[in-house]
Amino acid sequence: MFVSFEGIDGCGKSTQVNLLVNYLEEKGIPYIKVREPGGTHLGEKIRELLITQEMCARSELLLFLASRAQLVESVIKPALKNGKIVIADRFAHSSVAYQGCGRELGPETVKILNDFATDKTYPDIVFYIDVPVNVAMERMKNQHKDRIEKEGKEFWESIRNCYLKMAKENENFVIIDGTRTIEEIHREIVKVFNAYL
Amino acid sequence: MFVSFEGIDGCGKSTQVNLLVNYLEEKGIPYIKVREPGGTHLGEKIRELLITQEMCARSELLLFLASRAQLVESVIKPALKNGKIVIADRFAHSSVAYQGCGRELGPETVKILNDFATDKTYPDIVFYIDVPVNVAMERMKNQHKDRIEKEGKEFWESIRNCYLKMAKENENFVIIDGTRTIEEIHREIVKVFNAYL
Repeated sequence: MFVSFEGIDGCGKSTQVNLLVNYLEEKGIPYIKVREPGGTHLGEKIRELLITQEMCARSELLLFLASRAQLVESVIKPALKNGKIVIADRFAHSSVAYQGCGRELGPETVKILNDFATDKTYPDIVFYIDVPVNVAMERMKNQHKDRIEKEGKEFWESIRNCYLKMAKENENFVIIDGTRTIEEIHREIVKVFNAYL
Repeated sequence: MFVSFEGIDGCGKSTQVNLLVNYLEEKGIPYIKVREPGGTHLGEKIRELLITQEMCARSELLLFLASRAQLVESVIKPALKNGKIVIADRFAHSSVAYQGCGRELGPETVKILNDFATDKTYPDIVFYIDVPVNVAMERMKNQHKDRIEKEGKEFWESIRNCYLKMAKENENFVIIDGTRTIEEIHREIVKVFNAYL
């Protein structure tokens, strides 16, 4: 079983990933947690380039995909084969939203490139944590921002709209209202997770 | 005008690139020379990863493409716009041959990905320097070899066959017999180059 968490920066995604991971720990369910970009030796090197280097939108997407391909091949596929639950803090749908819509490379183009990079390995459930852009920006305002996080409101709006469109079109997406308390959100995620399990 | 040089490692490609560059210098023709992977700040960092890191075939291709996208956007397009001649030591067709055939990702798949990475910016002339694999391996035998160069004879044969197929199918390919002397090859390249110019 493969679960990913998606949403704009500041939606509370990583907090919920960690709470679900704690839950799996307590229940003694075998899992691995991965993050994107990164999660492999090569991926962490690529993450560094993505954060520190200036680059065009196409290179940005291709670097995310290169990191993803290695993660799928050397971590996700073996874990799934061994019956582990894979919990991903971002996966392929982030590229559709961020580079396809945010960077305007086109969501359909990104989907084709994702098929190649992931060898069509996709999550069974995508928890999309939805918050209005204003809420996310307010939460992020005192944090140090990297190259991508520095973008303006319009960029985030286009990403949020892209996520909402994917959620409507894909039945494996679960929209989670991210404006509630951390505990409320966690309870809903566990409920959906257990129903699927 | 955009010219690329292609061929298996040890075919004498870089020697011929430098001779053509010297010729352009002497004639006072404005040009830039680029190399792949690399040619930009980001590209050189990616080159380092490609040489030093273990990775799957998909990541290898995607890293070459990320380097290429940045090279096209920040170097090749501006140079062509300013009327300069672009001389590339390897370009998109290397990926078709090396990753499409050598790594067996499929030449058609690589062509689609190349279209994205290059924004369909392709050379007007491709000088494909053809040498039998035995000749190339003999020339390379005393050199230090990187991760890709260490591959066996079968790998190189599939790459050579892929180049020969592309040369047959694309009329902008010029097949150069790379078993002759450096000077003979250079004269032929200059002749074709001037005819095109």
